[in-house]
Amino acid sequence: MRIIVDAFGGDNAPQEILKGCAEAVAEINGLKVILTGDKEKIQASAEACGISDAISKMEIINCPDVITMEDEPMSVLKEKKESSMAVGLRAVAEGKADAFASAGNSGALTVGATMIVKRIRGIKRVAFSPIMPKYDGFFMLTDVGANVDARPNILLQFAIMGSAYMEKVMGINNPRVGLANIGTEAHKGDELRIETYKLMSESCDINFIGNVEPRDMPFDGADVVITDGFTGNMLLKMFEGTAAALMDKIKTVLTSGLKNKIAAAMVYGDMKKLKKSVDYNEYGGAPIMGAAKPVFKIHGSAKAATVKNALKLTDSYAKSGITEIIMEALAKEKTEKSGEEE
Amino acid sequence: MRIIVDAFGGDNAPQEILKGCAEAVAEINGLKVILTGDKEKIQASAEACGISDAISKMEIINCPDVITMEDEPMSVLKEKKESSMAVGLRAVAEGKADAFASAGNSGALTVGATMIVKRIRGIKRVAFSPIMPKYDGFFMLTDVGANVDARPNILLQFAIMGSAYMEKVMGINNPRVGLANIGTEAHKGDELRIETYKLMSESCDINFIGNVEPRDMPFDGADVVITDGFTGNMLLKMFEGTAAALMDKIKTVLTSGLKNKIAAAMVYGDMKKLKKSVDYNEYGGAPIMGAAKPVFKIHGSAKAATVKNALKLTDSYAKSGITEIIMEALAKEKTEKSGEEE
Repeated sequence: MRIIVDAFGGDNAPQEILKGCAEAVAEINGLKVILTGDKEKIQASAEACGISDAISKMEIINCPDVITMEDEPMSVLKEKKESSMAVGLRAVAEGKADAFASAGNSGALTVGATMIVKRIRGIKRVAFSPIMPKYDGFFMLTDVGANVDARPNILLQFAIMGSAYMEKVMGINNPRVGLANIGTEAHKGDELRIETYKLMSESCDINFIGNVEPRDMPFDGADVVITDGFTGNMLLKMFEGTAAALMDKIKTVLTSGLKNKIAAAMVYGDMKKLKKSVDYNEYGGAPIMGAAKPVFKIHGSAKAATVKNALKLTDSYAKSGITEIIMEALAKEKTEKSGEEE
Repeated sequence: MRIIVDAFGGDNAPQEILKGCAEAVAEINGLKVILTGDKEKIQASAEACGISDAISKMEIINCPDVITMEDEPMSVLKEKKESSMAVGLRAVAEGKADAFASAGNSGALTVGATMIVKRIRGIKRVAFSPIMPKYDGFFMLTDVGANVDARPNILLQFAIMGSAYMEKVMGINNPRVGLANIGTEAHKGDELRIETYKLMSESCDINFIGNVEPRDMPFDGADVVITDGFTGNMLLKMFEGTAAALMDKIKTVLTSGLKNKIAAAMVYGDMKKLKKSVDYNEYGGAPIMGAAKPVFKIHGSAKAATVKNALKLTDSYAKSGITEIIMEALAKEKTEKSGEEE
């Protein structure tokens, strides 16, 4: 597979991105990475961290401009259309590669996936779909903010796409799809939930298990949790904040006083594993599902190991044939019946 | 203060409720508890746990019926109007006491607060407003599910009520009010957030600090976090689930293998304190704000100590004069300008 990687996206670009790319190419069979960004800076950075050899074998599409975290999402189409992100997205759209990955501005990447790579025929919205840790393993939460508004037929499409991704890329057999809601009964929630519940119940393309309350998600509520972008973004951030605050408190306990420090040393390895197991950065990032070619958002704070994991997932995504599965399911669902086109 | 307590609400009724009442009366100056429920069962239960003396000094309004967790919220007005909850609410509405507290069915209690006790003049909706733990201390999240839909002027009323409660009952000086949102900038979120942000910015009755992301809430985002009931319910449950899953995982680490067990014994006291500090049950429950007289929801799983804490808060709530503060603020805000009456 050929993956274009934005060398200048994320907090640790370009160095950690480049290191991650070098590691990925060494590990993943048949992977070819094409970099976008300022060629001179890429070469200097590669030299500084001793990976000139690996990077020199990669094609670089030279483009000096960069989209920052402060830039508006629409900038990818306008004032920043010569940035490493915009150039990479266009190259994928033109068929130069099979997928695109970036740790840069999520809003711009979502706009770019929609407007430059374009959506799969029949898909109404793309969805930002991170893989989150649960008690044992992981689940997908989608959408977490690609769209502020949503309709039932759009959420059904997210469910179909999420199912396909979890099955083909993450290896979950017959993934259980739940609708995030304030109660488990079919009549719970606002009109959007009630209508979506009905639509999902009738679908033969997903293994719908009903409503799932956020309380159960960190345990084992469902494999794919469907919600609108606003609610999903709130849930993601509450998960993140609660886990971070609690881990901080535990750290404070384990470093206060000699006795506690000794105890901490005794459980150090296990606590470190635990911390890793609740860190959603461990899963590399989030696909922006629904784009005609795989677009993958690498976590903004990713270091080399996370970049490498993200590229592994992007590679599986590109190989999975999900786009075809989704198109088949869409044809069956005939979603155009239940909602207006835009 | 005279508080009517539903002796048959909650998972541990009547025994733990009665024990909590006995403890509260012993500790709180001038508190008079009036119980509602099956008189014979109350007396038998009091005898069984050795608190007959304390309970025999309390007035009991005899009513054998009980609202269960399975009953519909509206049952408090219809088929269960002779239940311990409905009878208690009517007695408060009729002036027999200053406040009502119940650990029973939240939905029924919300309907009862609205339809039996009735709302403060000018208040459009009551709000379910739990006190939640944060890194140091606590914050209020409101609404968490009394209403599924919301409008900007309703959320502003929640902010005014929440501010008054945090200041007068919880002792927070000039509480910082935040609007739960997906980003901190004023233009973030859906139409409801954007309009509410504007309205709150213009209000002189609250110390509005802008949008707050859920990620920051468990640290120190704001003292009062305002949101619609659907989102609030989701946030509350995600907080709860994440904390519970993480505490479970820590327990598993600390009980696996001899070395870890020894370490666990060394930090036992501190970890127990930590567990308590993230348990939102510790704060006794949630006021249902906006009712003409204080109605307090005690946590459903409350044991005696939590019931006692809840009654302390209900007592402070009744003494606080919040209703008058809210009415004054409403008069200033002239909220009737910005929304239709129902």
